[in-house]
Amino acid sequence: MSADDIARAVKDKKLSALEATEAALARIAKYDGVLNSFTDVTAERAQAKARAVDAAIAAGANPGALAGVPFAVKNLFDVKGLATRAGSKINRDLPPASRDATLVERLEAAGAVLVGALNMGEYAYDFTGENIHDGPSRNPHDPTRMTGGSSGGSGSAVGGALVPLALGSDTNGSIRVPSSFCGIFGLKPTYGRLSRARSFPFVFSFDHVGPLARSVADLALAYDAMQGPDAADAACTTRPVEPSLPALAQGIGDLRIAVAGGYFQKNVFPEAIEAVGRVARALKVNRTVEIPEAARARSAAYVISTCEGASLHLDRLRQRPDDFDPAVRDRLIAGAMIPAPMVDRAQKFRRWYRAQVMELFKSVDVILAPATPCVAPKLGQVNFTLDGVELPVRANIGIHTQPISFIGLPVVAAPVPLEPMPIGVQIIAAPWREDIALRVAAALEREGVVAAAAPRGI
Amino acid sequence: MSADDIARAVKDKKLSALEATEAALARIAKYDGVLNSFTDVTAERAQAKARAVDAAIAAGANPGALAGVPFAVKNLFDVKGLATRAGSKINRDLPPASRDATLVERLEAAGAVLVGALNMGEYAYDFTGENIHDGPSRNPHDPTRMTGGSSGGSGSAVGGALVPLALGSDTNGSIRVPSSFCGIFGLKPTYGRLSRARSFPFVFSFDHVGPLARSVADLALAYDAMQGPDAADAACTTRPVEPSLPALAQGIGDLRIAVAGGYFQKNVFPEAIEAVGRVARALKVNRTVEIPEAARARSAAYVISTCEGASLHLDRLRQRPDDFDPAVRDRLIAGAMIPAPMVDRAQKFRRWYRAQVMELFKSVDVILAPATPCVAPKLGQVNFTLDGVELPVRANIGIHTQPISFIGLPVVAAPVPLEPMPIGVQIIAAPWREDIALRVAAALEREGVVAAAAPRGI
Repeated sequence: MSADDIARAVKDKKLSALEATEAALARIAKYDGVLNSFTDVTAERAQAKARAVDAAIAAGANPGALAGVPFAVKNLFDVKGLATRAGSKINRDLPPASRDATLVERLEAAGAVLVGALNMGEYAYDFTGENIHDGPSRNPHDPTRMTGGSSGGSGSAVGGALVPLALGSDTNGSIRVPSSFCGIFGLKPTYGRLSRARSFPFVFSFDHVGPLARSVADLALAYDAMQGPDAADAACTTRPVEPSLPALAQGIGDLRIAVAGGYFQKNVFPEAIEAVGRVARALKVNRTVEIPEAARARSAAYVISTCEGASLHLDRLRQRPDDFDPAVRDRLIAGAMIPAPMVDRAQKFRRWYRAQVMELFKSVDVILAPATPCVAPKLGQVNFTLDGVELPVRANIGIHTQPISFIGLPVVAAPVPLEPMPIGVQIIAAPWREDIALRVAAALEREGVVAAAAPRGI
Repeated sequence: MSADDIARAVKDKKLSALEATEAALARIAKYDGVLNSFTDVTAERAQAKARAVDAAIAAGANPGALAGVPFAVKNLFDVKGLATRAGSKINRDLPPASRDATLVERLEAAGAVLVGALNMGEYAYDFTGENIHDGPSRNPHDPTRMTGGSSGGSGSAVGGALVPLALGSDTNGSIRVPSSFCGIFGLKPTYGRLSRARSFPFVFSFDHVGPLARSVADLALAYDAMQGPDAADAACTTRPVEPSLPALAQGIGDLRIAVAGGYFQKNVFPEAIEAVGRVARALKVNRTVEIPEAARARSAAYVISTCEGASLHLDRLRQRPDDFDPAVRDRLIAGAMIPAPMVDRAQKFRRWYRAQVMELFKSVDVILAPATPCVAPKLGQVNFTLDGVELPVRANIGIHTQPISFIGLPVVAAPVPLEPMPIGVQIIAAPWREDIALRVAAALEREGVVAAAAPRGI
């Protein structure tokens, strides 16, 4: 059942919140041994919350738009009583969080029921979902394959239908990549739209948080419930709530849509081209636009990520180097040694690039691009060949997502149900126009061009 | 004659703009051999402009608030037809500027007459005014002493009364330091207040430009003539003109004034304490406020300066290392090798520190602090002893200015005419409140506590 279906059934008293919660807990118990999505299942808390929702309904109160909807969060969100591990070994020694993250509070205020915390790549510096401390999260369509990362558990929990809704974070692609590999929808909102308060950071200047779900309506429901300013996140202090759900039924005939050319049509396997092509044909798009200097944008995103990440982790690198995943540690140490003028130049480029892309959005409303260059690779796969060049898988999975998030654009990752493995397409809009990206995704979903894939691997 | 006196006399036809200009050119010819303030004297251009002002007056037109006032600019401002050398050897190979800097255009639009370009420390990375390519600018009160820098020529030209008005730039103290050493008034406005368009940069995120003059009224006249947004400087696109001149005659009884304690009372020679004490007594101030973590602020300002400076000059460092002043080159090379996370942390600290200081301005309107720790050192002096520690002069002259400009606060440097050498006091206000700092300086000037010193060294 979708989040929307559950919330309606609970409100109509055809299903209790507790029944919905127990069903999710049962699915987790049955399948998470394979998927390894969860690092914590908060069953007692969930049951208590579900009973409270049911009591509110019995008392005639409005239980909220997500009444009884089970959800789970990437384990970098604070959950009261749990140490916020952020995929690391080191953070397990932190004191338990004393308060939930803002987004957890907002979803629960709308009636949703937190059932647990999800596996993720260490400190979110990851595209694979392979965590050496907790083991890899596994792809629900083929458990021998990666979920993608770093929100890997979010991808497998929703892709495996253990929960209809999960939260992830996305700096360079960490919502969009697992959405693509796990065949689900993901929303990386505009930078500053959703509060990151009480979530563990990675790169402050382009960390985003957002939902993953099995339908566009569920994505919009969750997104709308989480919107609104929050003084506790300096990037998210003013933007008012701008509901997206009412727009989903609208047509899209008024929108100017183009496919990203150049860089975004190179560096791909045939399945990525096929997926973007299907979507473009369904939308009758025959226009291509060039996002200028996208390759340099990706480089700049990498340089800034590694520097800000190293700055964040400097004390941990000094004090507990042996407790990192060695590969993550080496990336952070490299970042700690980058000469500062390189980063300064990357930041200058970023300002220029943002201005160029803003200019582009004067003549286009939506840009389509691959979410990943390929379907989910096998777990442990180290290299692949992209445009004839042997490259490391991990570093190149985000080749098409990095140039987009580094300037904060909103994107819906929408799953094209190719066989045997699904793959996502990025629907990219101008800042603060999540509604447009969601409208296009909804239109494609109505036509059956994009759809969450049934988890046939479990 | 002050700028104000000249403009009045010219408007009243008691003096022609050409006479005022020729008088300045004559003083330059007579004294600049000693002072070494000017690198270019634009006599023909000045005479042509002066004739145009006189013609406008003869035709009954309003010649502007600075009619016939001679001025000169630090040689990092573009002057049409000159290569903008910015104190360097390398930049002399640039093509001549095709258009004046915005501030030159605005002063000339108000009737002022540009008479030349002024000596400065190489690429503004300097506190001494000692330029190895052009020779040091010399202090008008004692030519064996430094002018301070990097706007050294601006300090000596105004301090020597060669011109009543000059422009300088101030990143870490480059207007306030020469104002202090040369016994004149200087205004470092709020970051973003005055356009830097077509001036040669140093540290984009806290480069400021502003006037130096021999009276508060002249400072305000020039400042008001230069205000207003300019699309050509990304930091200066919106702030409207907020005239300061009308406020100067106001009393200051309503203002909450305090002396900066802690860091700003340490690291000083007795003359700096005496100067601040005189000003505080005249203002009947007995309150002290602590600017928190000022020492760390100075360190952060240094780290960011050297990184942004190195980023700016990276290609020149690679291509023409031998054409730099070796000391400047070494500072920039050090900056090119700073690990990026150090700069990231300095930037994080800067945001915290700005918020702390903003908080302070809720309970105080003006903060008084030394402009320099000492009067002008001897030319070539390498070390001095500050609080019992032997330190390099150059790096420590800006010890009290750096923590202020790095967060963009407006400051008037006001000269206390101590014997035998003058020294300045910083009058610091909250962002966009230059008017308040100027009002306090005007009140002190009326009482004779601060005053431009007569140039008795020439």
